[in-house]
Amino acid sequence: MPKTPYKIYLTEEEMPKNWYNLKAVMKELPTPFIHPGTLKPCTAEDLEPVFCKELVEQELNTTDKYIEIPEEIRDFYKMYRPSPLVRAYCLEKLLDTPAEIYYKFEGTNTSGSHKLNSAAAQVYYAKKQGIASLTTETGAGQWGTALSMACAYYNIPLNIFMVKVSTEQKPYRKAVMETYGAKVTPSPSDTTEVGRKILAENPGTGGSLGCAISEAMEVSMKTPNCRYVLGSVLDHVLLHQSIIGEEVKIACDKYDINPDIIIGCAGGGSNLGGLIAPFMGDKIEGKNNIEFIAVEPASCPSLTRGRYALDFGDTGKTTPLMMMYTLGSGFMPSPNHAGGLRYHGMSPIISKLYHDGYITARSVEQTKVFDAATMFARCEGILPAPESSHALKVAIDEAIKCKETGEKKTILFGLTGTGYFDLSAYMSYNSGTMEDYIPTDEDLEKGFATLPKVQL
Amino acid sequence: MPKTPYKIYLTEEEMPKNWYNLKAVMKELPTPFIHPGTLKPCTAEDLEPVFCKELVEQELNTTDKYIEIPEEIRDFYKMYRPSPLVRAYCLEKLLDTPAEIYYKFEGTNTSGSHKLNSAAAQVYYAKKQGIASLTTETGAGQWGTALSMACAYYNIPLNIFMVKVSTEQKPYRKAVMETYGAKVTPSPSDTTEVGRKILAENPGTGGSLGCAISEAMEVSMKTPNCRYVLGSVLDHVLLHQSIIGEEVKIACDKYDINPDIIIGCAGGGSNLGGLIAPFMGDKIEGKNNIEFIAVEPASCPSLTRGRYALDFGDTGKTTPLMMMYTLGSGFMPSPNHAGGLRYHGMSPIISKLYHDGYITARSVEQTKVFDAATMFARCEGILPAPESSHALKVAIDEAIKCKETGEKKTILFGLTGTGYFDLSAYMSYNSGTMEDYIPTDEDLEKGFATLPKVQL
Repeated sequence: MPKTPYKIYLTEEEMPKNWYNLKAVMKELPTPFIHPGTLKPCTAEDLEPVFCKELVEQELNTTDKYIEIPEEIRDFYKMYRPSPLVRAYCLEKLLDTPAEIYYKFEGTNTSGSHKLNSAAAQVYYAKKQGIASLTTETGAGQWGTALSMACAYYNIPLNIFMVKVSTEQKPYRKAVMETYGAKVTPSPSDTTEVGRKILAENPGTGGSLGCAISEAMEVSMKTPNCRYVLGSVLDHVLLHQSIIGEEVKIACDKYDINPDIIIGCAGGGSNLGGLIAPFMGDKIEGKNNIEFIAVEPASCPSLTRGRYALDFGDTGKTTPLMMMYTLGSGFMPSPNHAGGLRYHGMSPIISKLYHDGYITARSVEQTKVFDAATMFARCEGILPAPESSHALKVAIDEAIKCKETGEKKTILFGLTGTGYFDLSAYMSYNSGTMEDYIPTDEDLEKGFATLPKVQL
Repeated sequence: MPKTPYKIYLTEEEMPKNWYNLKAVMKELPTPFIHPGTLKPCTAEDLEPVFCKELVEQELNTTDKYIEIPEEIRDFYKMYRPSPLVRAYCLEKLLDTPAEIYYKFEGTNTSGSHKLNSAAAQVYYAKKQGIASLTTETGAGQWGTALSMACAYYNIPLNIFMVKVSTEQKPYRKAVMETYGAKVTPSPSDTTEVGRKILAENPGTGGSLGCAISEAMEVSMKTPNCRYVLGSVLDHVLLHQSIIGEEVKIACDKYDINPDIIIGCAGGGSNLGGLIAPFMGDKIEGKNNIEFIAVEPASCPSLTRGRYALDFGDTGKTTPLMMMYTLGSGFMPSPNHAGGLRYHGMSPIISKLYHDGYITARSVEQTKVFDAATMFARCEGILPAPESSHALKVAIDEAIKCKETGEKKTILFGLTGTGYFDLSAYMSYNSGTMEDYIPTDEDLEKGFATLPKVQL
């Protein structure tokens, strides 16, 4: 067995040729999308006006454990994948821990995150179907950048609704998307009905992913041959992100790395779902006993303080109902710097796995997250995204525990992206003015009050 | 022979263990540093108050073709190296050229450029010598970021003088350096004698690398046990950067790639010198007939319109004299967005090779550079740095020529870094307000008038 290198890169031949469909392995399936009018499960026909046909098929596929990645998408992936699995030698040394720490680094592409994995796939299917234009929302800007890149590559026009507070915190994110040819509108905007309604009800709001989704969906429904694409939450997005976990699995097998703990940050759940997919499949099949930890911001604690309920995916209540851990689609998260984790709900797959005890969850405060991020940047070189640093923070906590107990655990976390466009957040941290936001029980009750009255 | 992958990564075992010292191969050596008082070559004793001892040894070494890279530095390199050699399949397809295009991508580390290669080495030697603190200058911010990262890793305090116009164009660069613990001062500043003098003579100046060097050198001379470090121009910096060219060489040998043309952008010359080192050595030894092209901005054309003369490396005229292509240390370049190429002089090694006909040079205007950058970003995914895009622009020109002539040349260029911190430049380009600056002959004469009267 060769000594573990600092960075494990698979060869292009070793790259996975299939995505891993966790639903084909789960003992109990997540509740499917529910039509808010009929309260019956949504059919493919219900979903196809909004999403591309092949994505709907993938969304509803509960039987095929492996779904082939088309060669064109694999070629796109080769522009920036395989991504490295890194042994955090320097961090281990700094922490003086007996634990081995690994991270899968998804930040080596221009979008700065894992989001490109699903963007590449979704735009490919749209192109194949002859779709004329796409709409989407973006929070932190990672998904918007990724989609801009894929749309530039496939030459499809793109309209992006970007959470307003993020356009202000990250002025250059908009510029990147525009460089890739996308049109970017801060949300809520007065360009849509739902945007005008939200603005009237919440004047001065910084917006949220939930609002931006409503606006993007409205435009896609009103524009001929236009489709909406979403960067997280949905089952087909988690499917595309399984490329992360599969690469990790191949690298682990090659170097005989056996994770005891796998940690991912969780906003909508796409990174976490993708990272853990094949390992969780094995756990369900009784082949390992890995501890999976979802980490969310204390300011937006959907798993740790939310309710498992049917809820809309957006603030405007235009999506199908999803059974998920949620703070209520009307919950307005405080302006935490991890924009990508500022979402009221959680992927139905992740929610179900959490509900059934396969995943545990923790929430962390952002100043602690930036303590970890700065420590990591200084010893490992990489400046991490605030979102990714949530997972990092818990990985460090676990490594310190190992130091105390003497356990030699193998800890693996997802470093989903870089913080190059989050420097205003780092500036706030560096200057000591960063605040932590923890919603009170009363804040949460206000959110829960917006849950649909009818539940299954 | 395997098909060329999209990205060639060497294994950590394949990484070079030696730097390549071009001076040991050159038929005629560059003129050594000249002491401005005595007009005699500088000795090690002259240089050691300013630079670390081992760096002075490397600077003066003209005999050893290979200089071993200490294991500690190789371990540092492993945090972000080897960097990929990428086959630009998508760009080739877009240009419909028979040429093969490759680029060595140095932007996969947080400094966003190749600068970390020398920073890692210089800080290591400073630490080994027991130096208490370091000073430096930075233009575009890439060198400053790289040095901040290395200083954080080795725990050495760092003072950075950052060209004022760059701090304004790239507000977040300062934030990154501060995150890594460096102290950043916009230059010219009122914190040094030379800074105050420059400000008095050029009120409202945006500064230049030349000014910032003067300020950093002054502080290093006045602070006990402090040393100055420089990110380009000097022979030992080119030596460290030879890791780039050596990795390219190993990858080319492995995949039987035989470049006809190698292209690099040239500001101070460190990237170009490092990229071409082993290939140029072979050319000097008659083993290849590669065409080497240095690309510089039309706004700061030291090779294409400068004079080969003895000149100071800084505006304050405090450095030893160097024989180089120069616009005169008093030349104040216009605010071109490629801050890293905004320097009046050029590496003595590159200058000598150019003077002796081993290298050709071209200058390009920045709007054309951003045309190329945007085209590249949209098809290859990576958002390139403005500096790197100078090389890219000429690579595209050469590939188009191949289309016209039907020649199937192999074109290789250095993609030195990413443009994540250059979004204000892209915004200027996107909005159509970017201007080209070409100095008039009169502008150049003003610069030449600042050349030392005494020449060899």
